[in-house]
Amino acid sequence: MDPHDALMQQALALARDAIGRSEPNPRVGCVLVSADGQRVLGQGSTQRAGQAHAEIMALRDAAALGHAVTGATAYVSLEPCSHHGRTGPCCDALLAAGIGRVVAALPDPNPLVAGEGFARLRAGGVEVIVGPGADESRELNIGFFSRMVRATPWVRMKIAASLDGRTALENGASQWITSTEARADGHAWRARAGAVLTGIGTVRDDNPRLDVRAVPTPRQPDVVVVDSRLETPPDANLFQPGRRLIIYGAVQDAQREAALAAGGAEVVLLPGPGGKVDLPALLRDLAARGVNELHVEAGHKLNGSLVREGLVDELLVYLAPKLIGIGREMAHFGPLASLAEALPLHFMSIGRVGPDLRIVARVAGRDRFGPVQPS
Amino acid sequence: MDPHDALMQQALALARDAIGRSEPNPRVGCVLVSADGQRVLGQGSTQRAGQAHAEIMALRDAAALGHAVTGATAYVSLEPCSHHGRTGPCCDALLAAGIGRVVAALPDPNPLVAGEGFARLRAGGVEVIVGPGADESRELNIGFFSRMVRATPWVRMKIAASLDGRTALENGASQWITSTEARADGHAWRARAGAVLTGIGTVRDDNPRLDVRAVPTPRQPDVVVVDSRLETPPDANLFQPGRRLIIYGAVQDAQREAALAAGGAEVVLLPGPGGKVDLPALLRDLAARGVNELHVEAGHKLNGSLVREGLVDELLVYLAPKLIGIGREMAHFGPLASLAEALPLHFMSIGRVGPDLRIVARVAGRDRFGPVQPS
Repeated sequence: MDPHDALMQQALALARDAIGRSEPNPRVGCVLVSADGQRVLGQGSTQRAGQAHAEIMALRDAAALGHAVTGATAYVSLEPCSHHGRTGPCCDALLAAGIGRVVAALPDPNPLVAGEGFARLRAGGVEVIVGPGADESRELNIGFFSRMVRATPWVRMKIAASLDGRTALENGASQWITSTEARADGHAWRARAGAVLTGIGTVRDDNPRLDVRAVPTPRQPDVVVVDSRLETPPDANLFQPGRRLIIYGAVQDAQREAALAAGGAEVVLLPGPGGKVDLPALLRDLAARGVNELHVEAGHKLNGSLVREGLVDELLVYLAPKLIGIGREMAHFGPLASLAEALPLHFMSIGRVGPDLRIVARVAGRDRFGPVQPS
Repeated sequence: MDPHDALMQQALALARDAIGRSEPNPRVGCVLVSADGQRVLGQGSTQRAGQAHAEIMALRDAAALGHAVTGATAYVSLEPCSHHGRTGPCCDALLAAGIGRVVAALPDPNPLVAGEGFARLRAGGVEVIVGPGADESRELNIGFFSRMVRATPWVRMKIAASLDGRTALENGASQWITSTEARADGHAWRARAGAVLTGIGTVRDDNPRLDVRAVPTPRQPDVVVVDSRLETPPDANLFQPGRRLIIYGAVQDAQREAALAAGGAEVVLLPGPGGKVDLPALLRDLAARGVNELHVEAGHKLNGSLVREGLVDELLVYLAPKLIGIGREMAHFGPLASLAEALPLHFMSIGRVGPDLRIVARVAGRDRFGPVQPS
């Protein structure tokens, strides 16, 4: 085992603390260790946007503990930033503190950083090692990487179904196919997303809140509705005080726009073919707004459109121990002409949640966007 | 841990060797141990029907090894038989050999035995202990228990589907949704069944052999076709030399019957409502023929009929990492009026087979038929 691995794992554990808090910034952890590697001097993780990054938190922690950090090693789960964003560059802070060595998991995919941080550190006489924990850090930040590299969020589609793949009866009834345990687990996944996306069909059928209630969360994710004709009722449960609600439409309707805006929603018109919302443009718009992970909880029609247009990256599927027979699909697309046209996945994880199963599957190849190699 | 458990586990391991061999007899293992519990004297498991039971095999093994068994303890995973079937009663053999104590997992559900074996042993001065390994032995022999107690086989429905529960495209294409690994695993489950059941739709669409090829097997299971109008082509791949093929129809057609019989099939007419085969009567007939476990590999229509009629005990589901969208269901039944009408299951096991998942689910309550308590 690489001698750096244990300390990088500690930095990654800190990075996981930033889930649901650091967005739109990446989840990063930092551990400062004495030059001989024997003593942890300080540690920290990324705070809310506009507040301190992991490196700054770790330096402050060491100072508060009265530890000198001159010549120390900083384990950081992502390349320290070199640009003036809402905070000063972490590189400069590390140099000013006299850090002797930086061990980083992988380069920041942000084109404003992208190796510039490492270069500036090296120019300042700091030894830089890149690589330990690279895969874990990228996985933890796959949404951030997606936004930086592809300019779209990582799209995770959550589906609750019976073992035979039915998300609702033919008459639309879907509450509740899965267990309270599975729904609570689903809330934890909502909490890590920057936004939750649904469609007007689900709003009309279920009138959901789509917020995080079953688990603690530092903030509620934004809510996004695909609603071509702006039919979201202004008294829908999605309207929650202090919460961002974006409604994407495809047709102009000044009266409805005004009613939705009066309720606190932002209306964005992105007309696409056939009077529908332009879904690829919607994803680009969400990325521009800082959404790293997009959590989709929609019905079979919108799910089908997302699959058909090749926009889904990952499936989060809960299977309940029941058979329903005739009913609604997970995603309404096709019919396919041959099995070779099926959407290829691979199973990432599988386990039990209460009486149900949870399956995470990834659309084959969707996670292979660069840069993935340590510099 | 019960001091008897380790030796009973050894007997159960021997019993598992009888899978695919002992049918229609139960899977039983026997370990003979010296009175002080320190030495294994002989062991055996049930042979083919008409040949020796586990107890006889263990006595022969001890004799071949030159071990005296007077006063020894016999660990048997099921009550020793007391009736003259195709072999003599094992009780008498154990008594004649001077066995001092019998530890049995649970009583034989066969009404011809059902405690009579224990009574006869006790009457002969043998100490009898019942209980260790009872659950495992019953699970291993759930088909035999089903046949003895319910007079129907244990019905296990095998389904290969995409993650979204599609067993075929809308155009019927289904070869191959799952992987070669999953298909080989499916053959191992075929091998443990007394018969494989399919429908005329599958015969017509896929012309399968439904035999065990991908794994070794001591014998091929029988094949059963539900074919109301006797439309199985006499040159179908199901006709294999030396293999029993039973075709259940619902309408008389002397010419077709003769053609099928000429090919080696047995035709049984069991007319039910609506010109269909009477499926409950079919199960009773198969039980009468000695089928303990029935392995169903059929299409969505016959699967739907079996679900609708409440005849399914267990599901063996392989899920492939792909989405198909519109296509054929696992089982075509419903539409249901409310979610409360869904067929309730519970998940028994879940794991990976090659790139696919294997899920074993049991229809809730179907395994709770008596007798289950040690006497």
